[in-house]
Amino acid sequence: PTSLDLAVVAGDGIGPEVVGAALEVLRAAAEGVEVRTTDHDLGAARWHRTGETLTDEDLASIRRHDAVLLGAVGDPGVPSGVLERGLLLRLRFELDHYVNLRPSVLLPGATSPLSPAVLDRGPVDFVVVREGTEGPYVGNGGALRVGTPHEIATEVSVNTAFGVERVVRDAFARAAARPRQKLTLVHKHNVLVHAGHLWRRTVEAVQQEFPDVTVDYLHVDAATIFLVTDPQRFDVVVTDNLFGDILTDLAAAVTGGIGLAASGNVNPDRTAPSMFEPVHGSAPDIAGQGVADPTATFLSVALLLEHVGLGEAAGRVQTAVVGALADRDPAAARPGTRAVTDAVLARLGA
Amino acid sequence: PTSLDLAVVAGDGIGPEVVGAALEVLRAAAEGVEVRTTDHDLGAARWHRTGETLTDEDLASIRRHDAVLLGAVGDPGVPSGVLERGLLLRLRFELDHYVNLRPSVLLPGATSPLSPAVLDRGPVDFVVVREGTEGPYVGNGGALRVGTPHEIATEVSVNTAFGVERVVRDAFARAAARPRQKLTLVHKHNVLVHAGHLWRRTVEAVQQEFPDVTVDYLHVDAATIFLVTDPQRFDVVVTDNLFGDILTDLAAAVTGGIGLAASGNVNPDRTAPSMFEPVHGSAPDIAGQGVADPTATFLSVALLLEHVGLGEAAGRVQTAVVGALADRDPAAARPGTRAVTDAVLARLGA
Ligand SMILES: CC(C)[C@H](C(=O)O)[C@@H](O)C(=O)O
Ligand SMILES: CC(C)[C@H](C(=O)O)[C@@H](O)C(=O)O
Repeated sequence: PTSLDLAVVAGDGIGPEVVGAALEVLRAAAEGVEVRTTDHDLGAARWHRTGETLTDEDLASIRRHDAVLLGAVGDPGVPSGVLERGLLLRLRFELDHYVNLRPSVLLPGATSPLSPAVLDRGPVDFVVVREGTEGPYVGNGGALRVGTPHEIATEVSVNTAFGVERVVRDAFARAAARPRQKLTLVHKHNVLVHAGHLWRRTVEAVQQEFPDVTVDYLHVDAATIFLVTDPQRFDVVVTDNLFGDILTDLAAAVTGGIGLAASGNVNPDRTAPSMFEPVHGSAPDIAGQGVADPTATFLSVALLLEHVGLGEAAGRVQTAVVGALADRDPAAARPGTRAVTDAVLARLGA
Repeated sequence: PTSLDLAVVAGDGIGPEVVGAALEVLRAAAEGVEVRTTDHDLGAARWHRTGETLTDEDLASIRRHDAVLLGAVGDPGVPSGVLERGLLLRLRFELDHYVNLRPSVLLPGATSPLSPAVLDRGPVDFVVVREGTEGPYVGNGGALRVGTPHEIATEVSVNTAFGVERVVRDAFARAAARPRQKLTLVHKHNVLVHAGHLWRRTVEAVQQEFPDVTVDYLHVDAATIFLVTDPQRFDVVVTDNLFGDILTDLAAAVTGGIGLAASGNVNPDRTAPSMFEPVHGSAPDIAGQGVADPTATFLSVALLLEHVGLGEAAGRVQTAVVGALADRDPAAARPGTRAVTDAVLARLGA
């Protein structure tokens, strides 16, 4: 493509800072591509002002773009769940982002909380394919007799063959394209027997199409153990929406912190734009100070560029970010947003 | 008490080995107490032979005891879910084990996968109070059109004010009795809004009864991050059945592995016997070789003794186990079941 129409949701807190930096990097890497951006004022500020989270008009406008770049939304003044359910998850569900892609790579220059005894065993490089449109995130459930001693609250995890199969097939395809060709299903099928067995049977069925991919299974509790004792065992992980949420935060911590963790909310069928965002939140405590690390957003931009068919530009961003990170002096004070951005821009020759 | 009637479920795999060792330790520590044990043949072997998981007679017999000591059940020949739902969880539900107690202490001699930079910050010593009778573990849900492209599988998390309040109050009482007096609620109330808000409101309400306890909240994904970057921040954690399952395996890994992790399935109202078991499973791959580490079962015995009012004996077991572990040479080969047991028995003067 020679042009790129981006819907930008900078959001709240450090969102605008990291998104601003990321757009500089994106433009530098995508030289020759006409990049047009449309700002979408969504998040806590908008909600405080108007009470709106995401209107039909917002959604229609976003749909007209090639992709969405999101910073972070939220502030402590918004009741829990309002923006998560009303904006973030609504976008993922409406735009059918059934592949929530979260690479976990321990890059040179990143600081892991794991011991050398664990890390010296080899490189940590895996990707979690988290289902993004079903499971415990569907918002089914409710509450009865709220606030009384007889209150009952339910949450329903909904899992369909359609929904599980498409994400499992995507994960297999990703595994098949990687050198190790290994897929690990994470669930808890010994307790959540209905959903778990659907996932298990689906993996067994789709496996027939990918004879070279080795398949492994871990209960979610065991998976957390291996993430800290043997993260090298993972290549591609496929799991449901909630387990994926938990595992990817842990994986981010293991590979240097959520300041470095990128994610793509991908609609592989391209019936709607995909959305790319750092895994971290709006971090209101450090907002406006120029200290937010934009690296996770840069890496999200790389995922975005790859998705829209600008693979070379994606590669340039990835290489520049990895190089800049490796250059950091771990003993020195953490560089600010501007310094991190300039280091990456310099490597992009901008 | 001068006597103790124990229902023993040694189970499968390494279960009989660790339980045998643990009963030696229990008898040595509880000198002067008449310890009577009734073996209950439950688990994979029984299921293969008879197709039974837990009969009404088994349950009635177990109920007649002061406490239950369980080793581990399961082998690869039993379909997933059969023993978990039909035996383990059935016991927890029938005996109303609403407090699933899981201490996490990094003991001298244990090997953590975390780096010195994290560990040097201070001792890791917390306890997870996992709800044991509700949440996603209730077994509600089902599946429709199984095996077809139109399959739908649901899992329903059921949470009641009654169930949440009693476990939250228990956790507050435990926090109030500890020097740091800190309670962390872990949930995901920004997504699982119905269940999450019930948990949150309940903590806020019960907090009034414990003005000296500091209360903190973490989303489950963030909690996994802190477990590996700042485990010292935790004192008492209270959470639901599934989050507790996940967090306690991760916590066990952080504090030296599930070979050391003890647990109590406690009925604080004493309407039925409580059950004590190591967090690990039956490990069929190493069964019968005398290499299983019985330490987790010893520590479970300490929890058991404490629960039945034999606090001094519990303290003796705890001290002996901690001492024996500290004596281990981390560079040497891992000691076998007999050697670990003898080291603890020697410290008990037996
Ligand atoms: C903010 C929240 C809704 C979201 C999630 O749970 O998916 C976040 O934790 C994430 O991982 O992107
Ligand atoms: C075996 C399984 C049912 C059990 C659970 O999920 O509770 C186990 O993982 C545990 O933590 O005791």
